[in-house]
Amino acid sequence: MNPEVTEEKPSALVIGVGAYHTLGAACCRRFAAQGFHVIAAARLIDNAQNAADAIHKDGGSAEAVCLDSCDEKAVASLFTYAMTHGNGRAPVSAVVFHAGNSARIPFLELTAARFERMWKSVCYAGFLIGREAMQHMVTLGRGTVIFTGATGSLRGKDGYAHYAAAKGGLRMVVQSMAREFGPLGIHVSNVILDGAIEGQRLSEAEREHFANAGPASILQVDAVAETIWHLHTQHPSAWTHELDLRPSVETF
Amino acid sequence: MNPEVTEEKPSALVIGVGAYHTLGAACCRRFAAQGFHVIAAARLIDNAQNAADAIHKDGGSAEAVCLDSCDEKAVASLFTYAMTHGNGRAPVSAVVFHAGNSARIPFLELTAARFERMWKSVCYAGFLIGREAMQHMVTLGRGTVIFTGATGSLRGKDGYAHYAAAKGGLRMVVQSMAREFGPLGIHVSNVILDGAIEGQRLSEAEREHFANAGPASILQVDAVAETIWHLHTQHPSAWTHELDLRPSVETF
Amino acid sequence: MNPEVTEEKPSALVIGVGAYHTLGAACCRRFAAQGFHVIAAARLIDNAQNAADAIHKDGGSAEAVCLDSCDEKAVASLFTYAMTHGNGRAPVSAVVFHAGNSARIPFLELTAARFERMWKSVCYAGFLIGREAMQHMVTLGRGTVIFTGATGSLRGKDGYAHYAAAKGGLRMVVQSMAREFGPLGIHVSNVILDGAIEGQRLSEAEREHFANAGPASILQVDAVAETIWHLHTQHPSAWTHELDLRPSVETF
Amino acid sequence: MNPEVTEEKPSALVIGVGAYHTLGAACCRRFAAQGFHVIAAARLIDNAQNAADAIHKDGGSAEAVCLDSCDEKAVASLFTYAMTHGNGRAPVSAVVFHAGNSARIPFLELTAARFERMWKSVCYAGFLIGREAMQHMVTLGRGTVIFTGATGSLRGKDGYAHYAAAKGGLRMVVQSMAREFGPLGIHVSNVILDGAIEGQRLSEAEREHFANAGPASILQVDAVAETIWHLHTQHPSAWTHELDLRPSVETF
Repeated sequence: MNPEVTEEKPSALVIGVGAYHTLGAACCRRFAAQGFHVIAAARLIDNAQNAADAIHKDGGSAEAVCLDSCDEKAVASLFTYAMTHGNGRAPVSAVVFHAGNSARIPFLELTAARFERMWKSVCYAGFLIGREAMQHMVTLGRGTVIFTGATGSLRGKDGYAHYAAAKGGLRMVVQSMAREFGPLGIHVSNVILDGAIEGQRLSEAEREHFANAGPASILQVDAVAETIWHLHTQHPSAWTHELDLRPSVETF
Repeated sequence: MNPEVTEEKPSALVIGVGAYHTLGAACCRRFAAQGFHVIAAARLIDNAQNAADAIHKDGGSAEAVCLDSCDEKAVASLFTYAMTHGNGRAPVSAVVFHAGNSARIPFLELTAARFERMWKSVCYAGFLIGREAMQHMVTLGRGTVIFTGATGSLRGKDGYAHYAAAKGGLRMVVQSMAREFGPLGIHVSNVILDGAIEGQRLSEAEREHFANAGPASILQVDAVAETIWHLHTQHPSAWTHELDLRPSVETF
Repeated sequence: MNPEVTEEKPSALVIGVGAYHTLGAACCRRFAAQGFHVIAAARLIDNAQNAADAIHKDGGSAEAVCLDSCDEKAVASLFTYAMTHGNGRAPVSAVVFHAGNSARIPFLELTAARFERMWKSVCYAGFLIGREAMQHMVTLGRGTVIFTGATGSLRGKDGYAHYAAAKGGLRMVVQSMAREFGPLGIHVSNVILDGAIEGQRLSEAEREHFANAGPASILQVDAVAETIWHLHTQHPSAWTHELDLRPSVETF
Repeated sequence: MNPEVTEEKPSALVIGVGAYHTLGAACCRRFAAQGFHVIAAARLIDNAQNAADAIHKDGGSAEAVCLDSCDEKAVASLFTYAMTHGNGRAPVSAVVFHAGNSARIPFLELTAARFERMWKSVCYAGFLIGREAMQHMVTLGRGTVIFTGATGSLRGKDGYAHYAAAKGGLRMVVQSMAREFGPLGIHVSNVILDGAIEGQRLSEAEREHFANAGPASILQVDAVAETIWHLHTQHPSAWTHELDLRPSVETF
């Protein structure tokens, strides 16, 4: 009835927009290109603002917010804001959460603090985000929530106990949500990224290796964002709950 | 140089077009809608012809071929035909193979013939198709080959030994190919279908159940074909080698 | 040369001896029956003392210690004590860690505190124990560390996000350790328990169900301890890193 | 009542006793050492006879039979013989099936005949053996059937499509049986062997490598047989359906 409501833009929330790791920004761009208003959330507001500015320059609609995704109240506040009608935008219908770089640490040098910090920023944050998303989406009866995972979530490896524990734990949270909330109309999905990601902090040697090996040797963030967008568009009769994305040249 | 060559249509080969099971036909339609010439292959030529006719009616380009996909020579001949330039079409760049229905058989009633037949039509046929596809695609340095699998390929269940063995075996063939031919530029992917599929032969009780449960309770073939099309369009830096597709209401 | 050294008893450390959940006590008994001195550790000293007393009554050798396995310093102290020569016993050569009961909690009712507490007592505690064990065992060049897991570590289920995240995370820690420390002579193994465990707190209805279904319907703790003992005796050319244990009547 | 019956020896059937691959013979020895009468089956009767002779020399009881395990009638005959009371022995209560060596074959060089032959000797033979075993054991209400698998059954690898398909297919058959027949009192288990096996045909270079790397670098057949024996002794409340066995130094 209300014509303004029908003109509301759909909106998406992307959590985890980094300075180097540009996958978050690519997801923002992808949804913006589709006409979504994008809420870009980052621990450092500058990173989120950069992603929003780039969208504005392309004529899109976006805003930046600062979020410590391990802070339960902050996560709840953001979702209360994002999941309601905003300034010309509908409640968020798609949430993307991307977190966590890996770095090899010999097991005997792994401190308890480091082990816990990795878990907090990946698994605990993912739980908080998932729970707040479900809380609101259950009422709406729809929505998509996509988490990025890693091959490290499938197999523990020498030197990656902290990373595998955090990503493996998150994967279990995602599966539990998918099973409980799929029948309620909410699409929860896990994207397993295997390989180096464009924009990731790399050593000089790695940088050179990938430059020589060509663009198919490192995950291009726009290519990843394309599949994330596809997941959001899937018909509820055929939802994907887990897929992998790897460079074609990656041995696995 | 040759202007006609540049006007060649891209082409796709879809193997396993059934009468009831209409996923094959849906894949044909999806590629045709994208401007592909489609070669529809079926054990019964009428099924393939029906798929081709539907495409013609919509103004698309298609042809029907008869194939026993367990016949090594027939598979080789088809690929020799499909992987070369045809009448205004380029060599096939996308192959989709869909085979095999499941039916519960108590283990003690499972005959050796039945066990072998299931394996032949799913795993052995998949191997023949995969090998012929790779043979030609390695020369071209590109191509996509997509197999449909089943949750039965991941876990053996009471009454499904024959099915799990065939689908689980095929999944291993697909993984082996993906690892060997990915670095050569060929995208090999496994689509795990979990749940009943639209068009599948159902019992009266099942039919009623799904009618009541609504369209999100049974895999819609156009929805499945949409994701298969997406796989074909993935950038080589971010290829999916396995994903699942399930009705949102499916418990898993 | 030193006759006293040759008369040292081998010793084992069992962490997680509960009042209801009697698997810890059964592991203590099994190693004691084999002539080991057993250090039984529990959060509540009475539970550990009961396990030690039972061993004394059977003529075995045991002692009880109190341990909060989430307390980094306490864990380190215990291992410093256990991994050195004691009063007539050799440094501990086998460690068993068993933690964590599951209880269904709907995702929307799962508090952050509850999510974190489960992780702490299962995954974080397991990491602390694993690290201290490795620290000492690397020097000795031998040792066995066995963790008990759960089917919940393999698949997230509706209502078990907290449990799956904790157990799934621990499983990744165990795999990472196995890969890093196997080549150094240390056997790290994960025992996946699927089903109700004898002694576990059960509802009245469950208790009745299992009483009727017979002793093969619920994991007998002595049977579990027998396989844990077998793992300790495996030759280093054929080590098991993961196995499941289920009641024969359990559907899975 | 019948005293002769009470004096019957328990008996075991070991299928797949090779000349080089000595795991079959080791399993025969292990059960014989426990007082079992052993029926050793091999494609080449000499291999089976050698295994039986070795047992006789040690004062044990054994007999050799020739079996093509892909021959349905021959498998059925053997089980009819083995699963009934014999000359002073009880019906077989434990069956062990070990088959199949791997060899790398580039996918494009893999012939259909080779692909099928591998499947027949591993997956189809395993199915025939499993079905005949179940047929008789269901009547007896007890029994253990153990299959040896391979890491190749879990993941397809470059050059191992034939092997992964056969072993992966067999693994699904084993899981299906375990789920259907566990509740009927029959223990079906899959032993995943990862690494080179003592006695296996090795290249000169491999032989030298393992000689230098020491006995923990290659699966010792007696160590594998020890765990297979343990599986047979497990209490029905705590059965293992799958475990891995790897040399401690194996990276995985």
